[in-house]
Amino acid sequence: MVGIGPGSKYEISQRALDALKDSDTIIGYTLYIDLIRDIIENKHIIASTMRKEVDRVKLAIQEAQTGKKVSIISSGDPGVYGMAGLVLEMISKENIPVPVEIVPGIPAANAAAAVLGAPLMHDYVVISLSDLLTPWEVIERRVKSAAEADFVIVLYNPKSSQRDWQIEKTAEIILEWKSPHTPVGIVKDVTREGETVVVTTLDKMTSHPIDMTTIIVIGNSTTFLYRDYMITKRGYLF
Amino acid sequence: MVGIGPGSKYEISQRALDALKDSDTIIGYTLYIDLIRDIIENKHIIASTMRKEVDRVKLAIQEAQTGKKVSIISSGDPGVYGMAGLVLEMISKENIPVPVEIVPGIPAANAAAAVLGAPLMHDYVVISLSDLLTPWEVIERRVKSAAEADFVIVLYNPKSSQRDWQIEKTAEIILEWKSPHTPVGIVKDVTREGETVVVTTLDKMTSHPIDMTTIIVIGNSTTFLYRDYMITKRGYLF
Repeated sequence: MVGIGPGSKYEISQRALDALKDSDTIIGYTLYIDLIRDIIENKHIIASTMRKEVDRVKLAIQEAQTGKKVSIISSGDPGVYGMAGLVLEMISKENIPVPVEIVPGIPAANAAAAVLGAPLMHDYVVISLSDLLTPWEVIERRVKSAAEADFVIVLYNPKSSQRDWQIEKTAEIILEWKSPHTPVGIVKDVTREGETVVVTTLDKMTSHPIDMTTIIVIGNSTTFLYRDYMITKRGYLF
Repeated sequence: MVGIGPGSKYEISQRALDALKDSDTIIGYTLYIDLIRDIIENKHIIASTMRKEVDRVKLAIQEAQTGKKVSIISSGDPGVYGMAGLVLEMISKENIPVPVEIVPGIPAANAAAAVLGAPLMHDYVVISLSDLLTPWEVIERRVKSAAEADFVIVLYNPKSSQRDWQIEKTAEIILEWKSPHTPVGIVKDVTREGETVVVTTLDKMTSHPIDMTTIIVIGNSTTFLYRDYMITKRGYLF
C-alpha cells in the first residue's frame, strides 16, 4: 500500500517512488493513477472508478497471490482514510498469506496545513464527515468533543453532491464552542492542478465552495491570521 | 521550513530534497542535521542543541534578511510540533518582510502508523503530553475528550527524563473510557537506526519503555490485532 502524497509528484517520498518502480502491477483509483502516470510507464496498470475500493483490493490480493509485486496506491497517506486498512482487513478475514508493506505518504491534511501556514502547531483532530461508512451520531459526537476541548479540527470529505447538510450541521455544533471569528482554512485539490486556498472565519465557513477534494482546517482558541497565514501558537515565549 | 520526514532519508520528499539543495544555509537541531548530513554537504550548516528553538529561528531570520536562502529543518512535518509555527509567530510579531515557504514532510505519527499496520484508518487525534509549553489541565481535558468520543489517539512526547508521571495519568484517564484490551502501538525512533516497535494493550502500555522519541498509538473500539498488525476498521462491508 503506497502513499503518493497529496498530488504533486514532488511530494512523493523516495521510498514510494522505489516501491512503484519495483512493482509489476499498480492498482488505484483512476484520478490517483493519472497523478503519477508518467512515473509508472511500462507497468501493468489497473485503474478503477470511485467506490470500488473492495474490488480493487480483491484484485490486488489476487495479483499478489500469483507472486507479482503489486502496489495499491492511495493519495496522501494510505493509513489515513486510505487503502491500508481495507487491505489488512481483507487479508485478516481470510488469513491470506501474502506479505504486505505500508509506505506512508504526506497526508492531505498536512499538505493543506503547509499551504495555510502553521495551523496544526498544537493538538489536532482529523475527522471525516462522510457518513457512508460511519453512523452520523458517531461523527457528530467526535465533532462536539473536538470543539469542546479546543482542538484544531481538520475535516476530510466535508461535502459531496449527495451529502450537503453534514458540513452545515458541523459548523453549527462547532460554533457552540468556538468563536465565530476562529480562523478557518479551506483548501481544494492541495498541490494538484487548480489548487485553491481560502482563509476565512468559522461563521463564514459554509458560504465558500466546499466539495469532496476539499480539506478544511479550523483553528483553536490561539490561532490567528497574519498576511495570508493561519498560525496556531505553540506556547513559546520570546 | 523543511520537513525531512521521520528519519530515514528514503522518506524525504523530492520537494524537500530540492529545497535543501537550493539553500545556502541549513539550520536545525543537531540530531536532525545528522540524519541528512550526507544530503547537505557543502552547505553552511548551523546545528544547535535541543530547547534552542527560539535562538535557531532568530538565526534563520537574520540569515534570510541578508538575502540568503535558509532552510530551517524539522523532523517529520514542520507543521506538527515543528518549527513552522515558531518561525511564522516570530515573523508576525515584528512584521519581518522575509518570504517563507513551508515544505511538508511525513509526520512521525503517520510513519509510526505505517509500521504498526493501519491504526489511523478512522478519526484520530494527535496530542503532545509535554506540559513545558502547555498547561497540564488543557492536555488532560483533550485526552479525556478524545477517549470519550472513541478517537484513535496518537501521543507525542509521552515521557522524558524530567517528565515521567504524565503518561501514567494519561493511561488512567483513557482507561475510564476505553477497554483495557484496546490495542496500543509503541514505536521508538521510527524509520531511524534502532527503531523498536511494541504492540500491546492499553492496560499494559506504561509497563513498556517509553521516552521522548517514542510515538504511541492507542486504538478505538474497532481496532484489532492480526499477525503483528494493528488495524482500525473503516466500516467497509465485504
